[in-house]
Amino acid sequence: METDNGLATEVRRLAERAKQAGRAIAIASTQRKNATLGRAARLLRESTPALIEANRADVERGKAAGLSAAMIDRLTLDGPRIEKMALACEEIARAADPVGSIDEMVRRPNGLLVGRMKVPLGLVGIVYESRPNVTAEAAALCLKSGNAVLLRGGSEAARSNAAIAQLFARALEEEGLDPAAVTLIPTTDRAALAVMVKLSGVLDLLIPRGGEGLIRYVSENATVPVIQHYKGVCHVYVDGDADLELAEKIALNAKVQRPGVCNAMETLLVDAACAKEFVPRVARAMTAAKVELRGDARARALAPDMKEATDEDWDAEYLDLVLSVAVVDGIDGALAHVAKHGSLHTEAIVTRRYDHAQRWIREVDASCVLVNASTRFNDGGELGLGAEMGISTTKLHAYGPMGLEELCTRKWIAYGEGQVRG
Amino acid sequence: METDNGLATEVRRLAERAKQAGRAIAIASTQRKNATLGRAARLLRESTPALIEANRADVERGKAAGLSAAMIDRLTLDGPRIEKMALACEEIARAADPVGSIDEMVRRPNGLLVGRMKVPLGLVGIVYESRPNVTAEAAALCLKSGNAVLLRGGSEAARSNAAIAQLFARALEEEGLDPAAVTLIPTTDRAALAVMVKLSGVLDLLIPRGGEGLIRYVSENATVPVIQHYKGVCHVYVDGDADLELAEKIALNAKVQRPGVCNAMETLLVDAACAKEFVPRVARAMTAAKVELRGDARARALAPDMKEATDEDWDAEYLDLVLSVAVVDGIDGALAHVAKHGSLHTEAIVTRRYDHAQRWIREVDASCVLVNASTRFNDGGELGLGAEMGISTTKLHAYGPMGLEELCTRKWIAYGEGQVRG
Repeated sequence: METDNGLATEVRRLAERAKQAGRAIAIASTQRKNATLGRAARLLRESTPALIEANRADVERGKAAGLSAAMIDRLTLDGPRIEKMALACEEIARAADPVGSIDEMVRRPNGLLVGRMKVPLGLVGIVYESRPNVTAEAAALCLKSGNAVLLRGGSEAARSNAAIAQLFARALEEEGLDPAAVTLIPTTDRAALAVMVKLSGVLDLLIPRGGEGLIRYVSENATVPVIQHYKGVCHVYVDGDADLELAEKIALNAKVQRPGVCNAMETLLVDAACAKEFVPRVARAMTAAKVELRGDARARALAPDMKEATDEDWDAEYLDLVLSVAVVDGIDGALAHVAKHGSLHTEAIVTRRYDHAQRWIREVDASCVLVNASTRFNDGGELGLGAEMGISTTKLHAYGPMGLEELCTRKWIAYGEGQVRG
Repeated sequence: METDNGLATEVRRLAERAKQAGRAIAIASTQRKNATLGRAARLLRESTPALIEANRADVERGKAAGLSAAMIDRLTLDGPRIEKMALACEEIARAADPVGSIDEMVRRPNGLLVGRMKVPLGLVGIVYESRPNVTAEAAALCLKSGNAVLLRGGSEAARSNAAIAQLFARALEEEGLDPAAVTLIPTTDRAALAVMVKLSGVLDLLIPRGGEGLIRYVSENATVPVIQHYKGVCHVYVDGDADLELAEKIALNAKVQRPGVCNAMETLLVDAACAKEFVPRVARAMTAAKVELRGDARARALAPDMKEATDEDWDAEYLDLVLSVAVVDGIDGALAHVAKHGSLHTEAIVTRRYDHAQRWIREVDASCVLVNASTRFNDGGELGLGAEMGISTTKLHAYGPMGLEELCTRKWIAYGEGQVRG
């Protein structure tokens, strides 16, 4: 891997090896895949001291490199976090195996019995930053769904990721499967990513998980299929006749229960018809919860302590205790605001009106559209998918949380008795 | 559109207008969409003389430019072909509207009622060559599935395409819908395509339909999501104990019933266990059907009249009365050959063995895998989807024929009564 050319050759070789290993994973029995996941969980637990040791080297270099406290926190592994990775493997082992399932078969007029069978995608690439638990969770999800996985983590977590990936390779090998089915690219050189995005015909899907810069780079340069997990500029719209107690409860939950995640609310829209009562009320509640408020002119007229929102605020993903507030003219105003500033992620209405609830559900373009519930429910676990790879805001293939089923595709199968076309 | 910059601005403007028009199409009632399709069918019929006139100009220029007879044939419109376009519109009007349908809703433990609703993708781009009927069929499919469409046809059919697209715009307008929902880019300048492939955030999907060069260009340059309809190197494998009469019937149908299409067979694989009997037999039948045969050494030893196949033959999509024939060692040999040379399109086995049928179904990676039936059944109409946009060999989103449902995505919807996350 000394020259760029050598690196390109090596990344391609690793990818092709992983793809090849995927052929056996694709047809491995559920039992064997589950046994491998159980073994990975045990290895993670047994290797806790070694993992913490490897992680300590990453953390020390991170501190020396001046990473923020928040980044160091996300990077750090301890006993409970390693136990959580092991539990995730066990949870994924217990989940239903989508591979081979067929929702429906129909007999065509000529007697041909046809249906669509869920099958793995093949080789899935994951590019991610910072949190080493992604290594374990991505490997476990890909393995269960019959895919080989090519992982490329961030340089700050290089040793931790290598140690975790190594345990998965060992688990595969001990269960008689090809360890190359979980392959971590052993360099965090940016050039490796440049090679990955061009592996057409080898990588069946590439998922970038991380900051806007990473996602943009992948989207703009990839020749392989990409599913983006992009930013969430999520809104709650409080309709004119809403139950304001319920609206306050939902807005607070959407903003403060976990502000640093993509399905948290970033902008509150309030119908002018209830703004006079609701804006001061929600402003008090948000302020008490330490939320910084940034309002448009109409909101600030009702709650003068708000800062003035700038044009940028309406497109901002704060991921923090900051909230922009706008007063809009009814559901049409809210729909127009969301169409302009929404990020296709999660949009909620609070209303008592049947017609407005149905219009919201029908007209809002987002991966999850809710009535009278917190935006925080756009989550694989909460929607019943189980563990997820993240929340897709790409409309193709998976729109919303990406679970085991979304790591599969469906091929047509047909059982005949000699049918030919006339 | 005089300078490249002006062209880029204009293509983007047209795309943004079409995207905007799509918002109304996305929520238009099935009734209104069907009425528009019915009107388009009537306009196509009424405008037959004008369409033939516009087409004549294309055909004359094509002849002057030296297009092959086959290309001139594909380009030419006549009464029956225009009637076929009108019938396609009416067939698509009769098809079920996928938009708004929900397969299943479940009540989560917290009482939230959740499900996935089919919704249009938004703005679909189609880049195609030669055949002007694609203009009508793509417009009708996108319209019915609630999508706006941005069409970019080939220069050889420019006048024909413009005349057809104009009728759709008129049908939309007369039904009170925005005519920009069917937008044909009014230039066939290659630079327009270069702009289209980069319209991230505007084009939700781009489908290239045409030769390998076009598909390769789009795949390598697109930053928007792409679904490829790539070449079909389809195989029929005749297993050792197959009913040879049935095998001959299926092989003949797969090769000669319509050799110029992507789901026709290109390579016949014969198990060594039945090769001595089957290879001479199928060679006689194929030769009688005017098929040129190219065999590997083992096949030629049994049917010496075959030409010698070269390495390129095993990856060739002839689209013609040419067939390569290889003798393989049982199902493992056939699976290995298909894994190496298949194009993820259509693969058939002829067998009497239950275990081999099930292995073929399970292990072959292709958009359609068949047992004892002709490869020609990988087709939207034959599989029960109705009209299709083509057959995807991209695994993401749509793998196989792409009908109305595949022009939709699914968003999560949730009906609550004040649920928040704890």
